[in-house]
Amino acid sequence: MATLQDLLTDDAKTSRSSVIREILALVDADDVLSLAGGMPDPATFPIDDLTTAATNAIGTPSGEALQYGRTEGMTILRQVLSAGAAERRSRSCALDDVLVTTGSQQALDLIARAFVDPGDEVAIDDPGYLGAVQAIGSRKPRWLPIPVDPDGIDTDALESALRAGRQPKLVYTVTDFQNPTGAVLHPDRRRHLADLADRWGFVIVEDDPYGGIRFGEPEHPPVATWTDRALSLGTVSKTIAPGLRVGWVVAPPEIVTVLARLKQASDLHTSTLNQRIVADLLSRPGWMDRRRATLSSFYETRARTLREALARSVPTMSVSDPRGGLFLWGELPGADTRALLDRAADAGVAFVPGAAFSPTDRASSTLRLTYATLDPAELEEAARRLGSVV
Amino acid sequence: MATLQDLLTDDAKTSRSSVIREILALVDADDVLSLAGGMPDPATFPIDDLTTAATNAIGTPSGEALQYGRTEGMTILRQVLSAGAAERRSRSCALDDVLVTTGSQQALDLIARAFVDPGDEVAIDDPGYLGAVQAIGSRKPRWLPIPVDPDGIDTDALESALRAGRQPKLVYTVTDFQNPTGAVLHPDRRRHLADLADRWGFVIVEDDPYGGIRFGEPEHPPVATWTDRALSLGTVSKTIAPGLRVGWVVAPPEIVTVLARLKQASDLHTSTLNQRIVADLLSRPGWMDRRRATLSSFYETRARTLREALARSVPTMSVSDPRGGLFLWGELPGADTRALLDRAADAGVAFVPGAAFSPTDRASSTLRLTYATLDPAELEEAARRLGSVV
Repeated sequence: MATLQDLLTDDAKTSRSSVIREILALVDADDVLSLAGGMPDPATFPIDDLTTAATNAIGTPSGEALQYGRTEGMTILRQVLSAGAAERRSRSCALDDVLVTTGSQQALDLIARAFVDPGDEVAIDDPGYLGAVQAIGSRKPRWLPIPVDPDGIDTDALESALRAGRQPKLVYTVTDFQNPTGAVLHPDRRRHLADLADRWGFVIVEDDPYGGIRFGEPEHPPVATWTDRALSLGTVSKTIAPGLRVGWVVAPPEIVTVLARLKQASDLHTSTLNQRIVADLLSRPGWMDRRRATLSSFYETRARTLREALARSVPTMSVSDPRGGLFLWGELPGADTRALLDRAADAGVAFVPGAAFSPTDRASSTLRLTYATLDPAELEEAARRLGSVV
Repeated sequence: MATLQDLLTDDAKTSRSSVIREILALVDADDVLSLAGGMPDPATFPIDDLTTAATNAIGTPSGEALQYGRTEGMTILRQVLSAGAAERRSRSCALDDVLVTTGSQQALDLIARAFVDPGDEVAIDDPGYLGAVQAIGSRKPRWLPIPVDPDGIDTDALESALRAGRQPKLVYTVTDFQNPTGAVLHPDRRRHLADLADRWGFVIVEDDPYGGIRFGEPEHPPVATWTDRALSLGTVSKTIAPGLRVGWVVAPPEIVTVLARLKQASDLHTSTLNQRIVADLLSRPGWMDRRRATLSSFYETRARTLREALARSVPTMSVSDPRGGLFLWGELPGADTRALLDRAADAGVAFVPGAAFSPTDRASSTLRLTYATLDPAELEEAARRLGSVV
């Protein structure tokens, strides 16, 4: 007789948990200082504003923040999101261009299900965001890893691959303070990427979870400014709170329609309570601007603290100069950072080895370090512990 | 050049929106009294308790109700859910047997992805819950529709199909106050279904969203009481509020592990804010028992009102005698209720034609009517309008 496990599909049997998740489990001990996760500091959560927004939402006379809602999202939230997208893209953006999702992770899942059949080519940042590798990877694509440098995904390398006959259906990149390297996609490359999409006929997925945390870096227009072939992902996970699980995708309306059909079968709709809370906060004049300023200042101090501590304690490591976001990207020439992690965990400090961010899983001398979670004194101690094992 | 739509997968191109969704859009006018949806009356939402629970959750010193969380769900919620499942099943249930999902719709989506490959056979209530048809249907199964009578899914018919060589991997049924017929699965059939699963080696998916609303009907043990091959779905959508999108599945831990891997790529985790709110309310001594009593009394009055009004205004319609839940099931011998709906909408009343609930989409003289959304005076007027077009 077949067991329940025998009845699983082959895909389900061979599905993998995220490497980071395994690392987080490994180092989930009270005496480990973790530079591994990407969790915002709870001290930054806007408790009072969230409390009033939640109270308002729950008390809405129509009850709409507690009721079933439209799969595409609540109108009040789609309005403020489409207005924001219109401003950033310097062109019109309608309500029907916006789909609210259960975190931007769900947008990735829906896009993967909508566009990727097994064997389809998908170009992606290398190193790149693991959640995208996981969501798109579940569709069994052929990966086309494109190198990332401090100016973001290398669009010349992408163009060469296209000219050499590669045919990606999707190109996925994080545009601002990329996870894991902190790269910012250069304005020239944004235009180049848009041109390539229009010329070669692929879909761009531009993901921007970190854009609200900027250390003096000016804002650059999204890739969608120059093409109709870009799907733009957003989230409040870094700017308000990840626990709300509110994200969105801005896309041509005929694509929003398809993604909404897939979303309907996936979870009917995103929590109306949380949508209403987010709509309330985003609608308050100047609220998000003040919030972004506060967060940017908070994390810039942390970033400098960790960078300077690493320069003192781990002098052999080259470290990126962060322009925003939550991560430093380091390199220890000649080291295997995956092997190093075990020794580091024993010494009471954790990070994510660079190999974890490679779609092709290759070994690496790089590592990702977050300054988001620990306070300055802990960051200095974490750097000391790391120095002791390098 | 391929358009974005050209790049969609064939499955995405041919995906369908729910028939009910189309009906709801059709009748979404102020002058239509809708017996079509299944939305709880906002008057029943526990506003004060939700407000205190949300305030407590947001203010949790650790910030855990606003932070990223474990994919499987928050420990405090899994604890109360596993304790509840243990009591209902009269046997032990561990934390690792519970996966929190973004509404029970997500549990259906994850189970479909975990177990169903195109062409696999899936047995399902006929008529049955549309959301299950949609979520499982996206995996392109071969449907094995099993008739439902007032005692629930006909397990003798299922056994005959098994003996005739049909090989369903999954059997999906709503056990209590089934959507759309209001049927309650008879205790003998629960045991029979468990026996069949153990004998023939399939997976049971028992869904119970309406069990909290009972008009004197005693509680029956879930199918999982008698077999390890049942996955039990639950939700607070009908007992607290649908807008929270908090559901769960109780399953053997090795299956929870696989579903959690799929969930991780889908939306990382369910809103920690909403999980914490639900855990708070479910942990209050006697809270859910009082809530169920209040809701049961509220909806029983509504059910009687609609049933009596229909007996007066639409005497040719036979109507189910509801024992709980949110729906009446009617039959108009000789009528095509899909054609009737257009005339009804013109007369200012809406319902869902029975054909919408058939996995094989066959025409029908049946219809589903909800008493959940309208107040008693509106229910009487809706019955009069329906009578005028029959």
